[in-house]
Amino acid sequence: MVRTDQLTWTEYVEKLEGDPLVFLPVGAHEQHGPHLPMGTDAILATRMAEAVAGRLHGLVLPTLTYGYKSQARSGGGQTFPGTISLDGQTLTAMTQDIIRELARHGVRRLIVLDGHYENQWFLTEGIELAQRELLTSGTQMDIVRTEYWDFCPQHVLDTVFDGNFPGYDLEHAALIETSMMLHWQPELVRLDAIPQDDQAHFEIFDYYPQDGAGVPASGVLAPARGASAAKGQLITDNTVEAIIQALQAKFCDR
Amino acid sequence: MVRTDQLTWTEYVEKLEGDPLVFLPVGAHEQHGPHLPMGTDAILATRMAEAVAGRLHGLVLPTLTYGYKSQARSGGGQTFPGTISLDGQTLTAMTQDIIRELARHGVRRLIVLDGHYENQWFLTEGIELAQRELLTSGTQMDIVRTEYWDFCPQHVLDTVFDGNFPGYDLEHAALIETSMMLHWQPELVRLDAIPQDDQAHFEIFDYYPQDGAGVPASGVLAPARGASAAKGQLITDNTVEAIIQALQAKFCDR
Amino acid sequence: MVRTDQLTWTEYVEKLEGDPLVFLPVGAHEQHGPHLPMGTDAILATRMAEAVAGRLHGLVLPTLTYGYKSQARSGGGQTFPGTISLDGQTLTAMTQDIIRELARHGVRRLIVLDGHYENQWFLTEGIELAQRELLTSGTQMDIVRTEYWDFCPQHVLDTVFDGNFPGYDLEHAALIETSMMLHWQPELVRLDAIPQDDQAHFEIFDYYPQDGAGVPASGVLAPARGASAAKGQLITDNTVEAIIQALQAKFCDR
Amino acid sequence: MVRTDQLTWTEYVEKLEGDPLVFLPVGAHEQHGPHLPMGTDAILATRMAEAVAGRLHGLVLPTLTYGYKSQARSGGGQTFPGTISLDGQTLTAMTQDIIRELARHGVRRLIVLDGHYENQWFLTEGIELAQRELLTSGTQMDIVRTEYWDFCPQHVLDTVFDGNFPGYDLEHAALIETSMMLHWQPELVRLDAIPQDDQAHFEIFDYYPQDGAGVPASGVLAPARGASAAKGQLITDNTVEAIIQALQAKFCDR
Amino acid sequence: MVRTDQLTWTEYVEKLEGDPLVFLPVGAHEQHGPHLPMGTDAILATRMAEAVAGRLHGLVLPTLTYGYKSQARSGGGQTFPGTISLDGQTLTAMTQDIIRELARHGVRRLIVLDGHYENQWFLTEGIELAQRELLTSGTQMDIVRTEYWDFCPQHVLDTVFDGNFPGYDLEHAALIETSMMLHWQPELVRLDAIPQDDQAHFEIFDYYPQDGAGVPASGVLAPARGASAAKGQLITDNTVEAIIQALQAKFCDR
Amino acid sequence: MVRTDQLTWTEYVEKLEGDPLVFLPVGAHEQHGPHLPMGTDAILATRMAEAVAGRLHGLVLPTLTYGYKSQARSGGGQTFPGTISLDGQTLTAMTQDIIRELARHGVRRLIVLDGHYENQWFLTEGIELAQRELLTSGTQMDIVRTEYWDFCPQHVLDTVFDGNFPGYDLEHAALIETSMMLHWQPELVRLDAIPQDDQAHFEIFDYYPQDGAGVPASGVLAPARGASAAKGQLITDNTVEAIIQALQAKFCDR
Repeated sequence: MVRTDQLTWTEYVEKLEGDPLVFLPVGAHEQHGPHLPMGTDAILATRMAEAVAGRLHGLVLPTLTYGYKSQARSGGGQTFPGTISLDGQTLTAMTQDIIRELARHGVRRLIVLDGHYENQWFLTEGIELAQRELLTSGTQMDIVRTEYWDFCPQHVLDTVFDGNFPGYDLEHAALIETSMMLHWQPELVRLDAIPQDDQAHFEIFDYYPQDGAGVPASGVLAPARGASAAKGQLITDNTVEAIIQALQAKFCDR
Repeated sequence: MVRTDQLTWTEYVEKLEGDPLVFLPVGAHEQHGPHLPMGTDAILATRMAEAVAGRLHGLVLPTLTYGYKSQARSGGGQTFPGTISLDGQTLTAMTQDIIRELARHGVRRLIVLDGHYENQWFLTEGIELAQRELLTSGTQMDIVRTEYWDFCPQHVLDTVFDGNFPGYDLEHAALIETSMMLHWQPELVRLDAIPQDDQAHFEIFDYYPQDGAGVPASGVLAPARGASAAKGQLITDNTVEAIIQALQAKFCDR
Repeated sequence: MVRTDQLTWTEYVEKLEGDPLVFLPVGAHEQHGPHLPMGTDAILATRMAEAVAGRLHGLVLPTLTYGYKSQARSGGGQTFPGTISLDGQTLTAMTQDIIRELARHGVRRLIVLDGHYENQWFLTEGIELAQRELLTSGTQMDIVRTEYWDFCPQHVLDTVFDGNFPGYDLEHAALIETSMMLHWQPELVRLDAIPQDDQAHFEIFDYYPQDGAGVPASGVLAPARGASAAKGQLITDNTVEAIIQALQAKFCDR
Repeated sequence: MVRTDQLTWTEYVEKLEGDPLVFLPVGAHEQHGPHLPMGTDAILATRMAEAVAGRLHGLVLPTLTYGYKSQARSGGGQTFPGTISLDGQTLTAMTQDIIRELARHGVRRLIVLDGHYENQWFLTEGIELAQRELLTSGTQMDIVRTEYWDFCPQHVLDTVFDGNFPGYDLEHAALIETSMMLHWQPELVRLDAIPQDDQAHFEIFDYYPQDGAGVPASGVLAPARGASAAKGQLITDNTVEAIIQALQAKFCDR
Repeated sequence: MVRTDQLTWTEYVEKLEGDPLVFLPVGAHEQHGPHLPMGTDAILATRMAEAVAGRLHGLVLPTLTYGYKSQARSGGGQTFPGTISLDGQTLTAMTQDIIRELARHGVRRLIVLDGHYENQWFLTEGIELAQRELLTSGTQMDIVRTEYWDFCPQHVLDTVFDGNFPGYDLEHAALIETSMMLHWQPELVRLDAIPQDDQAHFEIFDYYPQDGAGVPASGVLAPARGASAAKGQLITDNTVEAIIQALQAKFCDR
Repeated sequence: MVRTDQLTWTEYVEKLEGDPLVFLPVGAHEQHGPHLPMGTDAILATRMAEAVAGRLHGLVLPTLTYGYKSQARSGGGQTFPGTISLDGQTLTAMTQDIIRELARHGVRRLIVLDGHYENQWFLTEGIELAQRELLTSGTQMDIVRTEYWDFCPQHVLDTVFDGNFPGYDLEHAALIETSMMLHWQPELVRLDAIPQDDQAHFEIFDYYPQDGAGVPASGVLAPARGASAAKGQLITDNTVEAIIQALQAKFCDR
C-alpha cells in the first residue's frame, strides 16, 4: 500500500519514521483526442508515481487531477469542451498548501511528478513560495520537481519511433501517451477512434485569445497510429527505472 | 461510465447534449482514526456521487481530494499528522475555476456534493464568486451544494443508532462513516483497530491555536463500535434514494 | 469604559497591564424582517460583548459591522435590498489584520464573538492565518471563537419556546433576536410590523444563483410573534452568565 | 433616522425610492494623544456624515472603523500600542465589496467621507475597482470621495488659528480634532491630559521600518492647547455647510 | 557606472561591500500634455536618482516605469489614451518583491525615489509589507521613501515662479516638469506644442467614475509657459543638493 | 521614434489611427556571468523589439525589466546576488494591467516579446486573464507571445556553432547572448572576464530549495568563448527578419 489516502493516520506516522520519499503526481483534465480519456495526464502521472514509489518504499499522495490551461501548441488548447483548467495561481496555491502540511507532518523528501506540460511553472512557483515559508521556521524539505517523460532513455525513443522521434512538443495524445495507456489501462483506450491526422503544424509563437489555429480537429498533435501496449511497457519500464536511479543517486543513503 | 476523466472529449460532448447533471464530489485528506483511511471523506463523497449519477444519467468529475482545515470539534483538528488541508481561498479558487470551465463547455446543472464538513463555506464562496462571474456573460448554471448526510432519513438514523443518534457533530470516523466504508470499501477498514473510546466532550467554543484539547488520542469523536456493512448499506441506499428524489423534484423534467 | 475606541492610547496601555480579555464582536448588515433593524446582528454581538467584558474587566474592540454573504436557509439570502455582504476573503483579511495588530500591542487573550451565522468560517480562517503568522515570531495569543447563542442554556430555550424550540437554523429575525432587541434596544423594534408568517420551509440543499426560493417575502424565517423584552432579558442574562463561566473556566487564573 | 443599520430593510427600500445620497464614513482606530479617544477619526467622520445626511435626506452606512496604517508624519505612526491598522488591500476590498452591494440595491449616489488621512488611496483604489466591475454590468453609480477637512473654509482656519494655521499635515490630535471632539463628544476628551508639546519636526522623507523618529512621545503632532467646544462648533458648522453646498452643486436636482 | 543593470553580478558584489545607497526610481507612463513625453515621470525620477547616486557612490536600479492610476486633480486622470496605469496591488507587489531580493543580496540602504504623485501609498504599502517579511528573518534594511520635489528649496520656487508658486497639486506637465525636461532631455520636449491653457479648476472632492471634469483638454493642469532649461537646471541642481544633504544627515557615516 | 514613453499622448493617439503593432519587451535583472551586464535579457528584448517595430511602423512600450525567478538549469538560479526576481503573480498582474490599459486606448495588436526564458508562463497567464476580462466588454485584441530566439534560423545556428548547437537550454550568458551584446552594446561587455568554464551538467530534474548544484561559479552555463560582434549581427539580422515575416504573415494586411 503506497497511497496515503488509503492509509490510516497511524499507519502513515509509522511509515514516516523511515523518512520515505513522498510523491505528488500532477495531471490535468484535458482533451486527449477521440481515443484517450480526459484524465490521461493524471492517470499516467499517478501510475508512474505508484510504480516508482512501490520500488523505493515511498508514499503517493492523491493526484492533483486538474492542471493549468492547455496551450494550443502543447495540448491542443482551451477551445475544446471537456478540458477543465485552473488559473495559475490556484495550482500554485494547491502546491504550496500541500507542502506546508507535509512539512508539519515531518515529511522531508517530496517528489512532484508532473504529467501535464503546462503545469510546470505554476508547480515551480508553488514550491518556491513554500520553501520561502519553510525558511521562516527553519524547516528543511528536499523537493524534486520533474516531468516523467524527461527520463525516457533515448534508445527507447529510437526504438519506439524507428529513429524518427519528432520531439516531445507534439507528443500530445500521440504515440507515447497512447502506448502507455494501452499498457496500463487498455480498457480506457478506444483504438477504433485513433485519428488518421498527420502531425500538427504551428506558428512559432503563441496567439491569444486562443482560437485553435493549427490544432487538428481531433485534438491529437502527432500520429498515434502504431501505438501498442508493448511499446507502452518498453517506455514505462525504462522510464521508471531511470527515475529510480536518479532518485537513488540524489538521496544516496537509501 | 459516469466519470468524466474516463471519457474522451468526444464522448463528453455527446453526453452534454442530454443536459446531464454533473457532480463534483469534494472530500479531504484527514485523519479518520486508526481504523479508517485518510481519504475516507473523498471516497464516500465520490461513491455517493457515482451512485446518484449512475441512476440519473449524470456525470462525475474528478473529486477534490484535499479539503479545508480540520477543526477539533468536527474532525479532530489540525494537530494530527496525515491531515493535509488547504487554505480557504485555495478551495474557493478550485471551485470557481472548475465552474468557469464547465460553463464554457455548456454544462448547465452542477451538484457540488460535499463529504467533509469543514469545506462547506469555502465551496459556497467559490460558487458565489463563479455565479458573479457567469453573470457578466449572461450564462446561467443551476448549482446545488449539499452535504450528503443531510439526506439520510431520520428512520434510518433511528434504526442504526437504536434511537440514540447523538447528532452529526461528532460523527467523525464513527458509526456512520465506518459502516459506509465497510459497505463500500471494506478492504480499507481495519476492524481490529477500532478504538474503545467514548464520545468526545468539547468546550462550546473553538480555540486557537488548535491544541487538540478534548480530542481523543485516536482522533475518533464518537464510538465506531457496532459499525457494520449492513448498516452501511442501509444508510447509503436510503441516502442515495433521498438525494435522487430531491434532485428529481428540483430538476423535474428528468 | 470597556470600548477601546473610547480609550486614549495611554489608558489602553494601562489596561493591557492587567492582561485583559479583549473582545471582537462581529455582526452583519442584513435584512432582519420588517420589524428589526439591519444592524441587528452587529448590535446584539456588541451588546453581548459589552455585557461580558463589563463583568470580566475586559475590553471591547469596534465591531465588524459587515459580514459574509447571507444564505437563504439561515438569513434569507442575498436577494434582499439592504443586505450588504463582504466576500469571504475580505472578512478573513479584516480578522487577520486586527489580530496581527493586537499581537503587536501585547494582547494575549482574544474572544471573537460572532452574531451572524454566515461569518463563522471566514473568521476561523482569519484566525488560523493570523496564528500561522504569529508562529513565525514566536508570539502566543489565546483566541476563542464562538457564536453567542451556543451558550443559551436549554432550560431557557424550553421556557421561551414552551418546549418547542425549532432549532437555531431558522431563528433569523425570529423570537430570540426580536426578544433580545426588545430587551436591549426596544426603540429600534417595530412591533407593529412583525409579520404573521409561519416557519419557512426549505429544500435540504443550497441553490445558486440565490433566487430566494422558500424564503418568506418578509425575510423572517420563523415566527417572531410572542417576542417580549422579558424573554429577551431571560435569554441575555443566562447567555451572558454562561459565557462568563466558560471564559473563567478557560482562563482560570482570573 | 439616517443610519441604515437602524432601518429595517423595508424602510430602506422606501427611502431608496427618493434616490438619496448614501454616505460611507471611514475612520481609524489610532492613537490620538493622551487626551483623545482612539476612535476619534471614526467618530468625527461619522458625525460629519450624519450632520450632512441629516440636512440632505441622505442615509449613513455603518462606519469603517479600522483604517490604513498610521504614518509618522501624519498620524504618529505604527509604533504606538492601540493603533489597529489594516493592510491596504483589506481596506480596498472592504470598499469594493460595499459598493458592489449598494449597486445591487439600486443606490446611485455614494459619498465616501474619510476622516483618516492615510486611508485616501486605498479607498480610491476600492472605488476604481468597483467602478471597473460595475462597468461590466452597465451599472452607473456617482461616487464622491473626500476628506471632510478639505471643506473647512479658510476664514474659519484664520479665526481658529489666529492666522497661523500650520497646515493639515500635523493636525493630528491637535487643535482642530480636539475642538471638534469637545463640540461633539466632550465626555470623551481628557482636557487635563492635553500635552504641552510643541509642533513635531520631521525629516522631509518617510523612513521604514517605522521607528517613531520625530514623533513626540505623546503622539500629538501639533499643539492642542487652546482647543474649545466653541472652536469645534465653528469648524464643524462651516465645514458641514461647505460640504452640503458642494454636494448640492454636484447633484443639482436636489 | 551607477546603474545595476549595466553591472555584471561580480561588479555588483564588489560594490555592495561598500554598503552603498541603492536607489529605486519610480515613475509612470502617463499623459503629460501635448509637449512632454509620456515617460516624463519615469525619466525625471531616473535622472534625479542617477544624479544623487553619482555623488554618493550609490547604485540605481531599473526604474519602475509604470505607476498607479492617474487622478484628475493631480495628473489629469485615466480618461486620456496613452496613460498606462497599474492596479495598486500590482505596484505594491513589485515594490515588495524587489526589496525581498535586495535583502537577499545584502543591500542595507534603499531609497525609493518617486516621480509620480499617485504612486506614493502603494509604494508605502510595498515597503511596509516587505519590512514585515524581513522581520521574520531578522533582516534589517533602512528604507527611505520620498517624492523628489519635496526637496526643492522654497527660494528656488520663489525665483522660478516669481513668488507665485501655486502649490504642487497642479504642477502636472507644467512649469517645473517642463523646465526639468528642457534641462535634461530637451530633444523630447515639443516647445511649439505647449498649450496656452490657464490653471485648471477642480471641485474639492474626487469623483468616480473618472469623467475628466475640470481637466483641460490638453492634460496640462497649470501653465507651462515660461519654462526654460535654465529654470530646469536651477530646480534640479538645488533639489539634488538638498536630497544629498538629507541622505548624508540620515546616513551620517558617509 | 517608436518608444511610446518618448511620445506625447497626442502623438500616440495619431499613431494609433494606423492600428500599429505594439510591442511589450520583457526581460529580467539577472546574473549573466562576469562579462555581461545583469540587464542583458531586458536589453536584448528591447533592442529586438525596437528593430522589428522600426521596420513595421510599430510602437515599443517601456520594457518590463524585472522577470520571474531564475532557475538553475536555464539561468543559473536564485543563489546569485544581483538577480532580482518577481513572484509569478506579480509578473502576471503587470501583464494583465498593461493589456487592460492598452485596450482602453484602442490598441488592437500586441506583441509580447520575451527575452527571459523563465517569464514565459506568467506572461501567458497575464494574457489569458486579460483576454478573459476583455471578453466581458466585447473588446478584441490580437496578442502574440513569443521568445525572440525561437525565430533564429537553423542555418544561422549551424554557422555560429559550427554545426554543434547544444540547444537553447544552456545558452545563458553564452555564445548567442554574448555575441548579440557585442553587436548591440559592446561597451557593456567585459571580454576579458569571459570565463573558461565548459558546459554545465545538470540533473534531469529541478531541485528546491535552490542550492546552485551543477551551476558553474561564474553563472555561465555554456562556453561564451568565440563570441563576436559579427556573429551577433548575423544572429540578430536573421532573427529580426524572421520575426518580421511571421508578423506580416499573421497580420497580412500590413
